[in-house]
Amino acid sequence: MEILTVNNVWMMICTGLVFFMHLGFSFLEIGLTRQKNTINILFKNIFIITVGLLLYYLVGFNLMYPGEFNGFLGFAGFALDAPLTTEGALDLTYNEGYTYWTDFLFQGMFAATAATIVSGAVAERIKIGPFMVFVLLYVGIVYPIAGSWKWGGGFLQTLETPFYDFAGSTLVHSVGGWAALVAVYLLGSRIGKFDENGKPQAIPGHNVPLATAGVLILWLGWFGFNGGSVLSADPSLTSLTLVTTSLAAAAGGVVAFLVSTLMYKNYDLTMFLNGILGGLVGITAGADVMSPTDAILIGGIAGAIIVFGVALVDKLRLDDPVGAIAVHLICGIWGTLAVGIFGSLASGAQFVSQLIGVGAYAVFCIITSFIIIFTLKKTVGIRVSEQEEVEGLDPHEHGMSAYPDFRLNEH
Amino acid sequence: MEILTVNNVWMMICTGLVFFMHLGFSFLEIGLTRQKNTINILFKNIFIITVGLLLYYLVGFNLMYPGEFNGFLGFAGFALDAPLTTEGALDLTYNEGYTYWTDFLFQGMFAATAATIVSGAVAERIKIGPFMVFVLLYVGIVYPIAGSWKWGGGFLQTLETPFYDFAGSTLVHSVGGWAALVAVYLLGSRIGKFDENGKPQAIPGHNVPLATAGVLILWLGWFGFNGGSVLSADPSLTSLTLVTTSLAAAAGGVVAFLVSTLMYKNYDLTMFLNGILGGLVGITAGADVMSPTDAILIGGIAGAIIVFGVALVDKLRLDDPVGAIAVHLICGIWGTLAVGIFGSLASGAQFVSQLIGVGAYAVFCIITSFIIIFTLKKTVGIRVSEQEEVEGLDPHEHGMSAYPDFRLNEH
Amino acid sequence: MEILTVNNVWMMICTGLVFFMHLGFSFLEIGLTRQKNTINILFKNIFIITVGLLLYYLVGFNLMYPGEFNGFLGFAGFALDAPLTTEGALDLTYNEGYTYWTDFLFQGMFAATAATIVSGAVAERIKIGPFMVFVLLYVGIVYPIAGSWKWGGGFLQTLETPFYDFAGSTLVHSVGGWAALVAVYLLGSRIGKFDENGKPQAIPGHNVPLATAGVLILWLGWFGFNGGSVLSADPSLTSLTLVTTSLAAAAGGVVAFLVSTLMYKNYDLTMFLNGILGGLVGITAGADVMSPTDAILIGGIAGAIIVFGVALVDKLRLDDPVGAIAVHLICGIWGTLAVGIFGSLASGAQFVSQLIGVGAYAVFCIITSFIIIFTLKKTVGIRVSEQEEVEGLDPHEHGMSAYPDFRLNEH
Repeated sequence: MEILTVNNVWMMICTGLVFFMHLGFSFLEIGLTRQKNTINILFKNIFIITVGLLLYYLVGFNLMYPGEFNGFLGFAGFALDAPLTTEGALDLTYNEGYTYWTDFLFQGMFAATAATIVSGAVAERIKIGPFMVFVLLYVGIVYPIAGSWKWGGGFLQTLETPFYDFAGSTLVHSVGGWAALVAVYLLGSRIGKFDENGKPQAIPGHNVPLATAGVLILWLGWFGFNGGSVLSADPSLTSLTLVTTSLAAAAGGVVAFLVSTLMYKNYDLTMFLNGILGGLVGITAGADVMSPTDAILIGGIAGAIIVFGVALVDKLRLDDPVGAIAVHLICGIWGTLAVGIFGSLASGAQFVSQLIGVGAYAVFCIITSFIIIFTLKKTVGIRVSEQEEVEGLDPHEHGMSAYPDFRLNEH
Repeated sequence: MEILTVNNVWMMICTGLVFFMHLGFSFLEIGLTRQKNTINILFKNIFIITVGLLLYYLVGFNLMYPGEFNGFLGFAGFALDAPLTTEGALDLTYNEGYTYWTDFLFQGMFAATAATIVSGAVAERIKIGPFMVFVLLYVGIVYPIAGSWKWGGGFLQTLETPFYDFAGSTLVHSVGGWAALVAVYLLGSRIGKFDENGKPQAIPGHNVPLATAGVLILWLGWFGFNGGSVLSADPSLTSLTLVTTSLAAAAGGVVAFLVSTLMYKNYDLTMFLNGILGGLVGITAGADVMSPTDAILIGGIAGAIIVFGVALVDKLRLDDPVGAIAVHLICGIWGTLAVGIFGSLASGAQFVSQLIGVGAYAVFCIITSFIIIFTLKKTVGIRVSEQEEVEGLDPHEHGMSAYPDFRLNEH
Repeated sequence: MEILTVNNVWMMICTGLVFFMHLGFSFLEIGLTRQKNTINILFKNIFIITVGLLLYYLVGFNLMYPGEFNGFLGFAGFALDAPLTTEGALDLTYNEGYTYWTDFLFQGMFAATAATIVSGAVAERIKIGPFMVFVLLYVGIVYPIAGSWKWGGGFLQTLETPFYDFAGSTLVHSVGGWAALVAVYLLGSRIGKFDENGKPQAIPGHNVPLATAGVLILWLGWFGFNGGSVLSADPSLTSLTLVTTSLAAAAGGVVAFLVSTLMYKNYDLTMFLNGILGGLVGITAGADVMSPTDAILIGGIAGAIIVFGVALVDKLRLDDPVGAIAVHLICGIWGTLAVGIFGSLASGAQFVSQLIGVGAYAVFCIITSFIIIFTLKKTVGIRVSEQEEVEGLDPHEHGMSAYPDFRLNEH
């Protein structure tokens, strides 16, 4: 009984921290984009967290954790039904790591994250209506089904060498990242992002302090994201996880800073920040099975990947205003594969399982997000008018300005 | 002993989260008002939290928890005096849910909240001096006496069917809300808020990102506000409370967004945000006795109430810059009555007790706040000069600008 | 086993809160300086936390906690090596208050703080390259050696009446404060800070909302800074510590506000905020041995010290843009000495030990920081060019603007 109380306290705190990540994502996204689209981005993020929770209550939780199922798709029914003892009290033997309610809420906070990743990549040009439809389908159905394959005990969990993804380098970050890639591809780049020769043009973010705050808040939130994925307050595992998480973040930032300084002769804060996020995403798949030194290596490599990944995305003429594809997709893949290379699970068989997992999610997420977004594109359209894009989504979709008392530059 | 340690950890965390709500309130208030009054609002909020804690130490805690008393007014003496065992150590049998010190600090963080609610409603035109006097009296004396009636074991607790207010829909939010109503009435509207026909004019807030951040911080803080009101880390009750709190917030936001979109054909972020707050205030009275579905209903109704409440306040020519009356007063009343309608306590007798409680606080708070504010109005005056209001309170009262490096619009 | 789990949960939360202080420091520093140097300050702070953690992993932790040593300098070897039982599991008998990993991370979050204090004082004119070198040496070597003298069991711990510094009024805040003093002295004042008669000119900070948010975040972070310094979740000590910390903060703010209002006839928000920080720094040395009333006295005196301290620094023609010397150095000394005057350790012998400790750190920190910074000054130079200072460090060092969409004033 007492150990449940302790564990549950830790899991509730982690739930709060993952919730707080939505402020981190919001600050990061608005900070790295232009002021004229600020309200639109905030609106999307507020929509995602509220609707995401309600959907996860209605269908998501029972799609993701269907109990006994065929390993690919199961559903335990609408809404929640807490297991009760014969006395009518919550069944505290459910799990000694947390109560049923905490389980739901912790997982629910995760669910919205995948859509938030997409939100950043499509910022400044997507129509809000179709985006909301995408969120309903991706958070309500695609994410939980994908999650069931591993965390729900599905086929990736029952491989001979089970696929391993501790806290979601693939299940959360790549699931969001693949959809971001598809959405950016179908949506096209912002006006002015590439010149007539396809050379990328910098479109500076309008509020660097908030972007920086976003990254620090996300780092703090990752204490809950990874620390809570232990699913108890086990002292060794939780504290090791916080150490690997923080050292990977630090190494990712420092390496991204060093590499980008060598390449571009500039102390680039944005790259430093994205390096931190890359390190965090990279360590997420194996945060509980790595030594601190492994974590520094994984995070550091993720930091280098960020610099080259951002350049690669630009080269492919994909316009990702916040670097979401490099951070969440590429570093998510790297972190997942790294479980086969570093740490206590490293082996050839594990590496193969990690590849299988990465491939399975790639296929599923690319197909589902393509179907959803392509259908929206061909029916209602997904892109705002040129006039709206130039003038900003805030006046057109929301009839408001984020900063009405400030004199602003047009661009 | 160990269970006290666990419980106390949870209660300390909740104390920190309720403290953090003061940043949320600050961001919300400045975000929804004009830049020229930013420092003034921040000053008021910093004053409230610091002076509020000192007052609660000096008199508030012992007014609110007087021990045995007549049910209406008691006082256990100035300052704090922790119960000691004969060995001189803190008496850990005081309560197995938290120590005496945690009890004080958790309740102290609540005390300042009521005044903060008023702060938002009177923003942009109240004189800082009289406002500080109001805070001294309302936080130091009125709030703790009101609290003693229920949480201190007073007459509302000893009704045959005791009045129920889990975490303060009435005891905190309506207590602040009634004073906000009285203050707004006595203060009058801001210049330009109503045209010659009494038609309300929008006065847009100057920093929507901070307002949004404020709401997300408040939501997080509510994990502590409601979660800590369990007064222990009881795993079933605390985790249920976080679920009902979050679902009510989500439902409040979504319904307010849908209703306002239908009514005004606009994706109004401010209404979405106030809907979330309305849902949070609404669930607060019964967060521990509701099912998740009940919570969604209570929160969703609160979201609708917000849209109509804001319109009603406008119609009454009351000028409430941040929507505090709709959020804290109207949704506070709704949440309190909802305990008689939904959840495990629902009954006719309970509904009557809830009405009695709402009425008792209405009478007490309207009278006391009227006496305080009316006296201030008739003696020193409560409203700044027209010139000061037009030019802003920041240069006049504080000799500073919140954003001296930015070029600003006059309005 | 269970008590370790509870304690470790508390210590992990405190670790997260101390991490969060880096956002508080960042907001405070940029808020109190000009927009043209914002990215530079954020860059420095991100550098400090990432590199600081990596250095603490590589050498700092084992310099600070060398085990048995001569009391002045010891080193337990590079990197970390968690104590293992014969079964290869983490040795949970290491300490019942936290695991080895938590111990490292909690202390690592502290390590970066000292450098962050310096960062504020030297803002707006220091070259980023030499500052990074300073951070490497001060965080990597000086801070941990200084820490070993007391927290590592060194000579100040083995005095007949041991020097007492609960959470670091001296070991963290003065260690940073002395270096800030030396750096400011060697660096000189910003252009325009003093007129031809040496009269200080106000250079207003560009973002007061973020500065205020910084202080509230720091106050919250101090729950972890002081609360975690109990090194367990002991219910009496942790909760007393939170009470003394919060009351000292409140008293510091209120007294600074009152004194500055009397002196300058102005409701000065910045002084209110720095008074809160002064109260927090002041209580830090003895937060676990003071009564609430003691805490109010210590904090209140710190608040008064802030007002006079800021004036004194100005009078000495030292240019400290954020008030770091008054807050961290002067109030750090005050708080350390206060342990000999107030609370359960107060005695003449204790006061002498406190003086010895203050003196030892003064000598060590002044000498080491002078050697580092003076060497940098005479070799690569520590100050940016006049042109760069006037135009801002952001365009010159980082090629970016923090607020490109806003129209800005030149100054």
